Amino acid sequence: MKNKRVNFMTYTKLDADSIISYILSIDTLHHFFGTDTLEASEIGDGNLNYVYIVRAADHPEKALILKQAVPYLRIAGEGYPLSRDRMSYEIRSLKLYNALIPQHVPDVLYADEAMSVIVLEYLSKHIIMREGMMDAIIYPNFAAHMGQFLAQTLFKTSSLFLEGTAKRQMMAQFNNNTELCGLTETFVFTAPYMEHETNEIDPLIEAEVLALREDTAFKIAMLELKYKFMNQSDALLHGDLHTGSIMINKDETYVIDSEFAFFGPFGFDVGALIGNLAMSWVSHFERSKDSHYQGWILESIVELYETFETYFLSLWSAAEQSALIEPGFIDHKGLKQYQQNFMQNILQESIGFAGAKISRRQLGIAGVADIRGIEEPKSRARAEKMALSIGIHLVKNYRTMHLITDLTDYLRNLK
Amino acid sequence: MKNKRVNFMTYTKLDADSIISYILSIDTLHHFFGTDTLEASEIGDGNLNYVYIVRAADHPEKALILKQAVPYLRIAGEGYPLSRDRMSYEIRSLKLYNALIPQHVPDVLYADEAMSVIVLEYLSKHIIMREGMMDAIIYPNFAAHMGQFLAQTLFKTSSLFLEGTAKRQMMAQFNNNTELCGLTETFVFTAPYMEHETNEIDPLIEAEVLALREDTAFKIAMLELKYKFMNQSDALLHGDLHTGSIMINKDETYVIDSEFAFFGPFGFDVGALIGNLAMSWVSHFERSKDSHYQGWILESIVELYETFETYFLSLWSAAEQSALIEPGFIDHKGLKQYQQNFMQNILQESIGFAGAKISRRQLGIAGVADIRGIEEPKSRARAEKMALSIGIHLVKNYRTMHLITDLTDYLRNLK
Repeated sequence: MKNKRVNFMTYTKLDADSIISYILSIDTLHHFFGTDTLEASEIGDGNLNYVYIVRAADHPEKALILKQAVPYLRIAGEGYPLSRDRMSYEIRSLKLYNALIPQHVPDVLYADEAMSVIVLEYLSKHIIMREGMMDAIIYPNFAAHMGQFLAQTLFKTSSLFLEGTAKRQMMAQFNNNTELCGLTETFVFTAPYMEHETNEIDPLIEAEVLALREDTAFKIAMLELKYKFMNQSDALLHGDLHTGSIMINKDETYVIDSEFAFFGPFGFDVGALIGNLAMSWVSHFERSKDSHYQGWILESIVELYETFETYFLSLWSAAEQSALIEPGFIDHKGLKQYQQNFMQNILQESIGFAGAKISRRQLGIAGVADIRGIEEPKSRARAEKMALSIGIHLVKNYRTMHLITDLTDYLRNLK
Repeated sequence: MKNKRVNFMTYTKLDADSIISYILSIDTLHHFFGTDTLEASEIGDGNLNYVYIVRAADHPEKALILKQAVPYLRIAGEGYPLSRDRMSYEIRSLKLYNALIPQHVPDVLYADEAMSVIVLEYLSKHIIMREGMMDAIIYPNFAAHMGQFLAQTLFKTSSLFLEGTAKRQMMAQFNNNTELCGLTETFVFTAPYMEHETNEIDPLIEAEVLALREDTAFKIAMLELKYKFMNQSDALLHGDLHTGSIMINKDETYVIDSEFAFFGPFGFDVGALIGNLAMSWVSHFERSKDSHYQGWILESIVELYETFETYFLSLWSAAEQSALIEPGFIDHKGLKQYQQNFMQNILQESIGFAGAKISRRQLGIAGVADIRGIEEPKSRARAEKMALSIGIHLVKNYRTMHLITDLTDYLRNLK
């Protein structure tokens, strides 16, 4: 094919044609494909961005993914401006994740902040985990993989590992991700629990929704969680770690879509994932009625958390010096006690944030397909009510839970 | 006098001669002095920086202060490098304070980040508060002034007042003050409580110091406070708000020396000030034995904190919308309950940080003149022991205190 000349010095929105010129203009990507003729097509249903697959026409297994941000919210159109900067945070976080735990994020083949473009390894043998869970597929390695992912990414970007200057320099790369943090502040912590034009409420659960708007204890607990989200800069978060941000198969697990990345509380990513697993668990009372699959989900929550905790503590044992703890400051027994308090707090905050994620998905602008995709209205409403009552319980009671099994026991006793 | 030509485009260390050329090269300062002949002389005992007074030779009341940072720690010499960037944080914070509460900070007449220079209003009728307190001078307006200063500066730089983007933009101005934050992390929270070459320990209190090194509960509480200092970005802190950073007389109160400014926990500035007042209170058992003066100090601690709390809450009532709370999210009763929890937490953390400040001053590199300046060794050791035991008690027990009078009652009952 013929190379069309395009000016890529300033931001240009790519399309299926210009994308090939763009790819060929970059040496490493040109080498990747060699002399093959290329084809590009848009894939997926990106809410925020445009996503293309680029293939060698005669060797379709030779492929890569190109993702470009546009200066608006893609699903809503040009009337909903959203800075292209989000791609810079995705680029920076994915590069950092590749340095920390390359086996669980796609390779970044090329990145261009000026063009808001990232070019990624094509994961041909994986599907979005949420889709797999709706089909009741068991992923035997998921919990171990994601427990390790969470431990590596959270521990190694925290002041338990980094020196002060290194941490502040890393924070400076993400400090201005204000717009996407603002979306979370509004759509996870605020709008779903008040009258708000963006809410999408099933009329069949209206009574519960109206009752929740009057629940002062819930609101206070939600403000406490929101305040932590806004002001506690423990570690670099993915920021949107639900089962739709994971590409998976029986063997491998990859985290994608990290444009919400910023420095926030440890429990937020852990809680987001646990909350989404719990919603899948709820959905299967209506979807598959497969108690074996539901059992696997609850076991996975426990294994996920316990793997996270074990790896986090083992990384901590290996890190002799950090901005927080100088060697010789505290004896072994004291350190163990401090670590125990520290991990207890992470567990509780994770459960609180899980509750926030579950609640908002029943009322707010973004439902989860697991539950909102249940077709029969009464069946869907039963799942929504159950999920909502779980979310409320966790938000109000996370400080009473001391083990991850306190959460799964609570769930198991609901039916 | 004749204008000497100096290149001020790049950083140049000023001296008593070149400083006058520098002043005259700046229009606003040239206007300030008019045609007067100028004199410059170095003043004070700046630990970090050079400080000059520049006067009109024939009108000595016409004067200003010029402060310049050098790329090393001034008291220690060129062998102890310290980035000049510290002046940028002082400039930015003083400008912000001038916008928020101009009556309690000196006017910034000129600032030049490239030259690491700030030119300030000359406070001719004020002395360093620590000096005044050593002489048992009562400052009747101090508590009300500083309570308001703390409320204005902390509330208006927090997410209780600012929108998310505004807060993150403000944080970005201070995010890299890593070096001075690192000094606090080491010399307030770590080194004093372990064997460390920088400690300066009075042999007469060695037994207490050795016992403290074995006190695991104290170490754990200190790590918790240090972790908050490093990871809780509530508001813009002064960062070094002791009685040596206040210029005062009976009528007026000015805060100076804000080079440690950064975003940290609300309680840190409040606690620093309370801790320094408590140390002065201790010192007067040996210095003046003036129980009336000591009574004024305890009353001032209560008035300072209560003024801070009252103003903070009144600013909160006036701020209908912030990144944290959207109008309509929570009802009046719920908001009051949330605020009560919130203020309780600030009080407790303030008392904890006060304890950390008191403890480190007895053991670490920087003592306070109030106590270390007591000449008679046994008398000094008595004060050191008493202060140390107060510091330890506050660090270990701050979560048990619910009112500021719990702190002053505890002090009052010590003797």
